[in-house]
Amino acid sequence: MTPLDRVPDPRPVPSGTGLTLEDALPAPVSGARRPRLTRTVAETRAALRELSAAAEGHDDGPVTVGLVPTMGALHGGHAALVRQARQENDVVAVSIFVNPLQFGDPADLEHYPRTLEADLDLLAAAGADVVFAPEVQEMYPGHPDAPIVTVSAGRMGEVLEGASRPGHFDGVVTVVAKLWNIVRPAVPALRSYFGQKDAQQLAILRRLAHDLDVDVDVRAVPIVRSPEGLALSSRNTRLDAAGLGHALVLSRALRRLRDAAEAGEMLDVQEARRMVEDEPGVTLDHLVVVDRATLEELGPELLCQPLRREALALVAAHVPPVRLIDNMVLPPAVGAP
Amino acid sequence: MTPLDRVPDPRPVPSGTGLTLEDALPAPVSGARRPRLTRTVAETRAALRELSAAAEGHDDGPVTVGLVPTMGALHGGHAALVRQARQENDVVAVSIFVNPLQFGDPADLEHYPRTLEADLDLLAAAGADVVFAPEVQEMYPGHPDAPIVTVSAGRMGEVLEGASRPGHFDGVVTVVAKLWNIVRPAVPALRSYFGQKDAQQLAILRRLAHDLDVDVDVRAVPIVRSPEGLALSSRNTRLDAAGLGHALVLSRALRRLRDAAEAGEMLDVQEARRMVEDEPGVTLDHLVVVDRATLEELGPELLCQPLRREALALVAAHVPPVRLIDNMVLPPAVGAP
Repeated sequence: MTPLDRVPDPRPVPSGTGLTLEDALPAPVSGARRPRLTRTVAETRAALRELSAAAEGHDDGPVTVGLVPTMGALHGGHAALVRQARQENDVVAVSIFVNPLQFGDPADLEHYPRTLEADLDLLAAAGADVVFAPEVQEMYPGHPDAPIVTVSAGRMGEVLEGASRPGHFDGVVTVVAKLWNIVRPAVPALRSYFGQKDAQQLAILRRLAHDLDVDVDVRAVPIVRSPEGLALSSRNTRLDAAGLGHALVLSRALRRLRDAAEAGEMLDVQEARRMVEDEPGVTLDHLVVVDRATLEELGPELLCQPLRREALALVAAHVPPVRLIDNMVLPPAVGAP
Repeated sequence: MTPLDRVPDPRPVPSGTGLTLEDALPAPVSGARRPRLTRTVAETRAALRELSAAAEGHDDGPVTVGLVPTMGALHGGHAALVRQARQENDVVAVSIFVNPLQFGDPADLEHYPRTLEADLDLLAAAGADVVFAPEVQEMYPGHPDAPIVTVSAGRMGEVLEGASRPGHFDGVVTVVAKLWNIVRPAVPALRSYFGQKDAQQLAILRRLAHDLDVDVDVRAVPIVRSPEGLALSSRNTRLDAAGLGHALVLSRALRRLRDAAEAGEMLDVQEARRMVEDEPGVTLDHLVVVDRATLEELGPELLCQPLRREALALVAAHVPPVRLIDNMVLPPAVGAP
C-alpha cells in the first residue's frame, strides 16, 4: 500500500511466489469492512468487551483476542502478523502508536511516517476488528514529564541493537506492557489494598496502576493510631516509655499542618519542623509537604496560600533506637479555586 | 497475634476504644475456616477462578477480587486491610512474600520475621479465602540472575524514603505488578503478535511476559524473505541494485550457521563473520550466536559442540546508505542431550 513496501528487486521475480512484500499484501477487497477506529483506552476496552461478548458461543473454545502492536506505516510484514492473528482469534485488535519513549532522536520521531488512511485500508483487508490509534497524551498523560513508573528491559536491552540505542527497549517494553493491560479486561474486577501509613509506597503504586494502565482499584486503608495519636507500628515496641511520649510530637506536628490546611491558612512547615526538633529525644529526618500524586515538594508560593488540591504532610524522625514515619493528608481549602 | 503488635502504651488506655493494634485485631474465631494456601502461580489462578465462578450470581454486581499484598509477620494493621477487602469483595486473596528485590541489605532480608502459622490464624479470622505464599524461585525463577525485565518507580522512588533505600521502590512496584498480573485472569485469552525479524525485541517481550507474569501468549511470525533470501524491510528500497546483491551475504552467512547447527557440527562464527567482511560494499557491525531466551552470547565452549538448545544467530551490517539486520533460529542438534 505504501511505496516503502516495494522491494526493487534487481532481477525479475517469478510472480505468484508469494515472497515479495507486495505479494504478501492482502489482495484489495472491494468494500472490505473498515475496522472500528478507537482513540481512547476506554473506547478500546468497550469495543473489545462488545466484540468478545458477541463472539461467545461461536465455537467451542474460550473467546480469544489477538493483539498486533504497530507503529503504523504498515506494510506486508504487518499484514502477515494481522492475518495470523485473524486466523487464530475471535477478535483482532491492532494498535497504531508512534511511541515517543522508544526514540532516542527527536528528529527520528518527528519524521517517522504517519499513514493512517492507508493503514486502515490494509487492516480492513487483513481482517482487523479494532484499530486503537491514540494520541501521545492519551497514552502518556502529562508527557514528557510522564510516565513516571515504567518498565525496564534490564541487561537484555543494553546489548546488541540496544547498545547503540540507550533506552530504546525500555520504551518498547513500557508501551507493550501498557497495551497488554489496555486490552485485558479485569474480569472479575480487581481491588488492591494498602495502608496509608506507607504513603510513598501508596502514591507510587497508584502511579504504577495509572502509568501502566492496570485495571485495578488501588484502595488506601487509614492509619490506625493510639488514643494519643501515635501511628501504630511494630517498631513502637522497641521504644521505652519516654520514647513513646516523645514520639507523639510527630502526629502533633502533622496535625498542626492539617488544621491549618482545613482553615485555609498558610502551611508553616518551618514551625512544624521546629516542633519536632525542639522535642527532646527526637532527631528530625524530614518533614515536608508534597503533592499527593507526584510526591513533589510544594514550594513556598503554594504553602503561603490556601491549598488548591490535596497534599500530603510526611515526617520521618529518629526516636532511638528506631526510625519512625507518619503522614497526614492535607485537604484543599473549602471554596479554593 | 505476634507480640510485635502490642503497643506498650505508657498510660492506661480506655478499653474498647478500638484504637490499639491489639484491639484492631479480629477476635479469635474458634474454628474459623483456614484460607486455602497456594504456593504456585498456577494454583493461585486456579483457586481464584474456582472461587470467582462460585461467587457469580450471589448478588447483583460483577464479581470482584480483593488482593492484599503483604510480607507476612502480620499484625492488626494488616488485619484492617483484609477486613476491608472482605467487606468490599466476593473473593479475598492475601499474598505473603518477603520480596528480596526490595531489600538493600541481605542481612535485613535474612532476619525478616517469617511467621506463617500465626499469619494463617490471623487471616482465617479476618476472612481471607486464598493465601498465596510462594518461594522466591516461584516468583523469580533464576533469582538472583532474574528477573531481567522489571518495573521502575522512576523519580518517585528516589525521593523521601527512597533517597536512603536505592532500588527499594523499584522492588515494590515490580512485585506488585506481578501480583496484580497473577490474580487477574486473562479472559478472554490474549495472544500478541510480533515479527521474528526484530529478534531482540521479541526475546525481550517474551521476557516481559515471563518476568511480570503477564497471562499472554507471545506469538512470533516468521521473517518474510525475497526469493534470494533477503529479509524484507522497508529499508531495502533505499538500496541500489548492487547493494541488494551485496546484502544477500547476510542471510547466506546465517544459513551457513543454521546448516551447521542442523548437522550437529561446530558453529564457526569467525568464518561467518569473514563471509560478511569479505563482501564488497558491506561493513559488518556484529554477527553473534546468542541464547534465544536471554540474548547472552554463547562462548567458544558451547559453539564447539552440538547445540543443546535453540540458539539465535544475529547479524547487523551497514550496506550504505542503510543498516540492515537479520537473524535465524539455530535448532538444537537432533539427539543432543
